[in-house]
Amino acid sequence: MKVRVHGRTKHYRTVSFDVRTNEVVLVEQRRLPHAFELICAGTYKQTARAIANMTVRGAGAIGATAAYGLAQGVLAFTGKTEVAFAKHVERVYQTLADARPTAVDPVNAMNDVLAMMTGGNTIAARQRLALQAAIKFADEDVAHCEAIGKHGAKLIRNGTRVLTHCNAGWLAFVDIGSATAPMYAAQAMGKDFHVYCDETRPRSQGAALTAWELAQQGISHEVIADNAAGHLMQRGEIDLVIVGSDRTLGRTGEVANKIGTYTKAVLAARHKIPFYVAIPLSTIDWTLRKGMEIPIEERDGDEVLGAWGTDARGTLRYVRVANPKSDARNPAFDVTPPELITGIITPTGIYKPRELWKFRRKLGGG
Amino acid sequence: MKVRVHGRTKHYRTVSFDVRTNEVVLVEQRRLPHAFELICAGTYKQTARAIANMTVRGAGAIGATAAYGLAQGVLAFTGKTEVAFAKHVERVYQTLADARPTAVDPVNAMNDVLAMMTGGNTIAARQRLALQAAIKFADEDVAHCEAIGKHGAKLIRNGTRVLTHCNAGWLAFVDIGSATAPMYAAQAMGKDFHVYCDETRPRSQGAALTAWELAQQGISHEVIADNAAGHLMQRGEIDLVIVGSDRTLGRTGEVANKIGTYTKAVLAARHKIPFYVAIPLSTIDWTLRKGMEIPIEERDGDEVLGAWGTDARGTLRYVRVANPKSDARNPAFDVTPPELITGIITPTGIYKPRELWKFRRKLGGG
Repeated sequence: MKVRVHGRTKHYRTVSFDVRTNEVVLVEQRRLPHAFELICAGTYKQTARAIANMTVRGAGAIGATAAYGLAQGVLAFTGKTEVAFAKHVERVYQTLADARPTAVDPVNAMNDVLAMMTGGNTIAARQRLALQAAIKFADEDVAHCEAIGKHGAKLIRNGTRVLTHCNAGWLAFVDIGSATAPMYAAQAMGKDFHVYCDETRPRSQGAALTAWELAQQGISHEVIADNAAGHLMQRGEIDLVIVGSDRTLGRTGEVANKIGTYTKAVLAARHKIPFYVAIPLSTIDWTLRKGMEIPIEERDGDEVLGAWGTDARGTLRYVRVANPKSDARNPAFDVTPPELITGIITPTGIYKPRELWKFRRKLGGG
Repeated sequence: MKVRVHGRTKHYRTVSFDVRTNEVVLVEQRRLPHAFELICAGTYKQTARAIANMTVRGAGAIGATAAYGLAQGVLAFTGKTEVAFAKHVERVYQTLADARPTAVDPVNAMNDVLAMMTGGNTIAARQRLALQAAIKFADEDVAHCEAIGKHGAKLIRNGTRVLTHCNAGWLAFVDIGSATAPMYAAQAMGKDFHVYCDETRPRSQGAALTAWELAQQGISHEVIADNAAGHLMQRGEIDLVIVGSDRTLGRTGEVANKIGTYTKAVLAARHKIPFYVAIPLSTIDWTLRKGMEIPIEERDGDEVLGAWGTDARGTLRYVRVANPKSDARNPAFDVTPPELITGIITPTGIYKPRELWKFRRKLGGG
């Protein structure tokens, strides 16, 4: 999307690759909304660290980052034997897969790259194919988000008040985003609507990233505390919920997403407010049979016990909000069951969550 | 409750009155959990300001503060005529009532003081009676919280995992608290249990105040993001919810409380987890006929857009978390309907929310 930096507006992707230097180039999301910076990860280990420490986050963005990271690691191989190459590829793959255990996108993306690599007869050929596959994955991510926008835009009318949770915006993908794609498409069609951004504690991606994105694109929006959505729904002030997902089970229609998503789905169901999940095909997990089997990352309690923000001088700081002698539990994701979900917006259309399996051919599920 | 300050443990009330200096003495709650300080409000206007700026907060505490503030204002009257006295009393009353429009406790408390004052024949007699009434109100607040603890303690067993939202602890009352009273009573009975403290954005009273209180009293607890309770309930990790209330409608059983309470009640109902509201009698509003008529205070958006906490050097700071160019909506309370509430724990026993009206004689409702 377009970003205004130092008075100039330019188009950026969240994730890209510099073939000259073999570097993965990322928007540094931990500095946003306070500063817009690009960082370059020079090795696959640095790329994995950027995924783990949330320099880059969001389903599609970490998928593309892992694909580029795999290509980057593969390209850096300087050994000679097939055995050493295979071991190296395995090590790169595992390092990148371990960076965010709940997400399915990195694994799906890297499996695409591995599949494409089998077409090469030499190590050099497979290295070239790895890079081509990663570039293709990133370009397809953009095309998928555009298609999500096309299908989802019809849910937004003039005057619609949309709630979104966390950031499933262009920062969470290579470009455009999933949950935000219908908004950007609706805006392009001249529709006039309003977005409530859940703050999304503990990391506040809604307040920091989604609000920044929407402000950059000039979409009317307000931040609300995660506690406020129930009240606004009760008073009839929310018409539609659109969120993203980190992993959607193709067999059951269960949706893993940022902690708090389940709560919003329960509230929306009570108030008969349509609740949609927008995902590219790479977010669908066709293997797992139960949402309870999705590993839920428990992150450091300090995220809950304090907050990152800028002080009066503009310096980015962590402040401790909670009682200094107390600890925290910090599950980072939750799982929303299909009965609470009105529809799944995908690049090939909108489906009932329980119908994903039926339409698996159309959804890339073999 | 007992507080350890500079290595010495001493008993404090949240609100007290210094008759020598005509000052209302308050625990400065905006400095907690980072520092424990008392502040003295020297005039009724300062007392009203302490209520409005949340130096003191919580149903019972602001009730007692308003009662003391009214007595303080009445005692400061130096005029001679009955007409001037009546006008002065009205001005003091209105100033204190306007400080927090959603809460009913200040108004109920001050009405008690006014009623007692009618027994005096002279201005001086009515001034004395005002002080007596305020002291009586504060002492009764403590006795009520003790009785809430006695009734509520039986809901907590060994191993119970309790969720509470915001702070309805001793800091929210003169002492002991409402939602925390069953916890303190259960602890005194030797029961072993665990409390999850909702952070309670935007002002984080759960993370800052409830966690501080529970740590001071040595009760096992963890802070969670407001987003996490739904997930913990889904995984069977919460057995009981106890919250306080800022205004409970005696006619309908509707409960106004800190924003986010309604969300927790909706989640608890879905998971068949008992949801209790603990209140002293002064929190019951016998007049209003509809929860929708309760005025919901909309506070400054900066609360949602940032956070207060201490930096690495221990300096209390506000940091801006959200996108600098975005605004926020900030409703401070919500209303929970009776069908989501298992019971109302009061000083005279536990009632179904819809039975408050039937038992209004026992509940001080005339």
